[in-house]
Amino acid sequence: MKNSNFKESASKIFKSYIPILEWGPKYNKKTLGNDLIVAVIVTMMLIPQSLAYALLAGLPPEVGLYASMAPLVLYAIFGTSKALAVGPVAVASLMTAAAAGQLASQGTSEYYGAAIALAIVSGLLLMIMGFLKLGFLANFLSHPVIAGFITASGIQIAAGQLGPVLGIDAHGESFLDIAISLWLSISSIHWITAAIGIGSLLFLFWVRSGLKPWLLGLKMSVKVADIMVKVGPVVTVIGTIFIVWAMGLDEKGVRIVGEVPEGLPKIQMPPLDFALWLKILVPALLISIVGYVESISVALTLAAKKRQRVDPDQELIAIGAANIGSAVSGGFPVTGGFSRSVVNFNAGAETPAAGVFTAVGIALTTLFLTPLLFFLPNATLAATIIVAVLSLVDFHALKLTWAYSKTDFAAMLVTIIITLVEGIEPGLIAGVGLSIFLHLYKTSRPHVAVVGQLPGTETFRNIERHGVVTDPKILSLRVDESLYFPNARFMEDLINSKVAANPEIRHVILECPAVNVIDFSALESLEAINHRLKDGGISLHLSEVKGPIMDSLSKSHFLEELTGKVHLRQFDAVASINPKLADHTRNAEKVSKRY
Amino acid sequence: MKNSNFKESASKIFKSYIPILEWGPKYNKKTLGNDLIVAVIVTMMLIPQSLAYALLAGLPPEVGLYASMAPLVLYAIFGTSKALAVGPVAVASLMTAAAAGQLASQGTSEYYGAAIALAIVSGLLLMIMGFLKLGFLANFLSHPVIAGFITASGIQIAAGQLGPVLGIDAHGESFLDIAISLWLSISSIHWITAAIGIGSLLFLFWVRSGLKPWLLGLKMSVKVADIMVKVGPVVTVIGTIFIVWAMGLDEKGVRIVGEVPEGLPKIQMPPLDFALWLKILVPALLISIVGYVESISVALTLAAKKRQRVDPDQELIAIGAANIGSAVSGGFPVTGGFSRSVVNFNAGAETPAAGVFTAVGIALTTLFLTPLLFFLPNATLAATIIVAVLSLVDFHALKLTWAYSKTDFAAMLVTIIITLVEGIEPGLIAGVGLSIFLHLYKTSRPHVAVVGQLPGTETFRNIERHGVVTDPKILSLRVDESLYFPNARFMEDLINSKVAANPEIRHVILECPAVNVIDFSALESLEAINHRLKDGGISLHLSEVKGPIMDSLSKSHFLEELTGKVHLRQFDAVASINPKLADHTRNAEKVSKRY
Repeated sequence: MKNSNFKESASKIFKSYIPILEWGPKYNKKTLGNDLIVAVIVTMMLIPQSLAYALLAGLPPEVGLYASMAPLVLYAIFGTSKALAVGPVAVASLMTAAAAGQLASQGTSEYYGAAIALAIVSGLLLMIMGFLKLGFLANFLSHPVIAGFITASGIQIAAGQLGPVLGIDAHGESFLDIAISLWLSISSIHWITAAIGIGSLLFLFWVRSGLKPWLLGLKMSVKVADIMVKVGPVVTVIGTIFIVWAMGLDEKGVRIVGEVPEGLPKIQMPPLDFALWLKILVPALLISIVGYVESISVALTLAAKKRQRVDPDQELIAIGAANIGSAVSGGFPVTGGFSRSVVNFNAGAETPAAGVFTAVGIALTTLFLTPLLFFLPNATLAATIIVAVLSLVDFHALKLTWAYSKTDFAAMLVTIIITLVEGIEPGLIAGVGLSIFLHLYKTSRPHVAVVGQLPGTETFRNIERHGVVTDPKILSLRVDESLYFPNARFMEDLINSKVAANPEIRHVILECPAVNVIDFSALESLEAINHRLKDGGISLHLSEVKGPIMDSLSKSHFLEELTGKVHLRQFDAVASINPKLADHTRNAEKVSKRY
Repeated sequence: MKNSNFKESASKIFKSYIPILEWGPKYNKKTLGNDLIVAVIVTMMLIPQSLAYALLAGLPPEVGLYASMAPLVLYAIFGTSKALAVGPVAVASLMTAAAAGQLASQGTSEYYGAAIALAIVSGLLLMIMGFLKLGFLANFLSHPVIAGFITASGIQIAAGQLGPVLGIDAHGESFLDIAISLWLSISSIHWITAAIGIGSLLFLFWVRSGLKPWLLGLKMSVKVADIMVKVGPVVTVIGTIFIVWAMGLDEKGVRIVGEVPEGLPKIQMPPLDFALWLKILVPALLISIVGYVESISVALTLAAKKRQRVDPDQELIAIGAANIGSAVSGGFPVTGGFSRSVVNFNAGAETPAAGVFTAVGIALTTLFLTPLLFFLPNATLAATIIVAVLSLVDFHALKLTWAYSKTDFAAMLVTIIITLVEGIEPGLIAGVGLSIFLHLYKTSRPHVAVVGQLPGTETFRNIERHGVVTDPKILSLRVDESLYFPNARFMEDLINSKVAANPEIRHVILECPAVNVIDFSALESLEAINHRLKDGGISLHLSEVKGPIMDSLSKSHFLEELTGKVHLRQFDAVASINPKLADHTRNAEKVSKRY
């Protein structure tokens, strides 16, 4: 009996950490068929994307393919989303380039080593966060900050790819640097490259916007039309490879991908270079968190459509495992990307096995198709990146944020500007710092209303908004915020000035229905307020204090030292001081306290 | 008419920024007599303290006297507290030593220059904060952090003074360094110095605890006995000066203060060395904020006893002016200290003029009494510091904090440990960082209760604590926290998992009586929750949303897209979905909404 209980709970733990044990045994032929079709479509999308994002990260193109095999298999084992497509994504690739570029120059083995180290450290950090249930760390990236950061990254990535599209060298660590560099070398455009690049761009934009209506006009089904749109980049790749090969354009200065090593990556432990790991700790943390935020948002959105469950802590472990898998197979940081996951979902992926089949597709490509990539022009890949990232740029969000909240708008704008001018790490850090600061600032000056009684009722309202009855001896204040250190002294000052301004006051009542926490600083401030009021011959009362807060307060001496009382309801507090006010009110006993 | 209005409002502004214009003209003979007596007592306390704190800051003793003149006069002009005694204090002196010690070694003119620069930059920062009403910045130092920091500083100061008391050289930037240094040189104790130092210590401790009862036993009045206690340090100073002089102990290796330059300090603008100012910006900011927190706490406490008003923003300007005054007269950072202010208050200081008379007392000392200080042993000054700072050490607060809140305790303990081990700046910064982090952590996982209806009432309560009625189609959640970025995703996960676990649910109601803010991140999360629930065939409702939040929400598209409705009361929300539940409840119309 005991033994079987033990077995059951062990099996439960295994299944919670290794979800494949749950869905694997139920796998059947029908799901297999579905997943295979999905895998073919996603593989077609992933080939150009993985090559392009490797170049964006400043790495050889095959590294993109390496990062698109092991991570997908590991996610299938550990992940909880049925539709998430893991692999290289634009923003994480840019962040990899920025971080590795601080340590070495592109093309060196140190640079490649740094990219692998970023993947392994990100993976370890994510797994640690997952086991310690520290997923909340990702929450410190507020939505306006992440939106601003992604918009600015999209602009920077697109600007950076204009160089390859036009056949000029333009580099920089921020949009500003890149824009200046582009401007200075604009005269050295390589026109044949530019023809291929701009041609690819125009074709890809048309595929995005014009192809589907055209195909539907030809009576093609919506589903097939959608697939054709997704396959657009592969068609561009094949077309431009053919043009370069047929016209010998590589000999006329068009930069091509060149020799891509055939064969699967070697699986090997990356060197345990702790000094290097320490140097990249901050960028690795930022890559993990940004990647995780992108991934979990997509996963939650897609899961909800089918009322499936996604476990955010298990997702940390799964994305962490995927990154470690990427590192040991020679890849760079990966995460769950938006566009491929949506395709995965829409094409009907039913289990993470679709990801495994996609990995097989990429493996077959690596084994047999790399010679075909020889004549692929860099300009084509740059064009596919530009088209992909421009969908990340969203200035409309600025307008929405401005309408809703000026402080959130400020956080977003600062993130965008600092990212564009100073680069992605300073932008992200400034955004996080500013949003925390603005939050503390707002709560440091909470809304406090002087309240009085609505005549004939037990209800108390802001004296500035309602015609209410007050007793000049009583000052009733309703605090619309938790009491904690940023506003502790504010309350002291406020009560000090209100009481000093009004010598008639003999009682102060704090009405606390919206106070969710009273921390030790606020407790000490309340004690100070109580003592100071006592010195001035005034008693302090509390009303509508929540249960958990009463529990905390009873652990201190505050309730013993309090000159007044704690009342369940504001009405009781006033009535206990001035019973006449109570007489105005009928049906008092029928109204019950609600919190 | 217009002209006189203008005159009046100009005069009002002048008076608000220069409070002496308000009380100065009303000054009369009676107040003068009172203030003069106070000034004599405080001057007697201030002479040894100012010399001792200058030595603690690593500066020549006369610098302490310089810092005790101009600042007092400037505070009298700009300050709003009647009793605050401004001048050198222990913690700010230690912080000055730590900051200046990073730039130069003690005794050099660069070191002195850095101390003056700290005073001027602190002063400017405080004045800027005052004019921009940025006093809330001081709130980021939570009470546990400041208490931990002051306890650790007290320990470090006391340990640092054991060297001079015992006649050995022991230095270090943290308690740990000093303790190791003391331990290593303990064998080189200079016994004559130790006799003076330990003798002074014992005498001063006896003055603190034994003198008053003894004098009261001799039928002396309480007031006179109190004054005698305060004068104790001066008596020690005079006594040990006499002993050293009479026995020629300075020639036997007892370190003495030596020649103190006679005469008033020169008033001159410190060099505008912006590079230096930038280097000391962070320590200067920390000194300003720690000093301001100490000062404003004392001022508010003393003002409340007489129901007087203290203006926290004007206090920033006044303490800022005092520091700039200190800098231009060759002094170092000053603030309002606890012990002298209390003496000031208890001795009956009625106006800031008492401070001006104290400044005159110090000026007379500087002009005429400095030769008498020649034989003053450093050991005596060190002993007065030890006795003064040990009252800052408060481990009892740790116990109180532990009982009240584990997170506040953690912030306090970390501040103490890091200050003792790493030094005062890292300690303070770690404490502030940790308390902000812990706050965000706590609010990132708010208390959320599933609520149901108390049978026969309109009241909704936690289903885990009360016997309540629920409808399996309705999930009602009460969120006890503002909705903002640290908990935005938490809400998404929570609702996703509750709904996935319970396929019967058709309606989700969020009851928001304790939600004081919904920021843009939370708004987007609510939109995502709404869309995902919609995809799953579930509608989302809100209830008990506060007015200001409804105002914000109405600026977004959320209310239009919401699949359910916003109800004033939780009861209305449930009743609109399941009218049967409403029938259970009598007197519904008599209960009015309270927020």
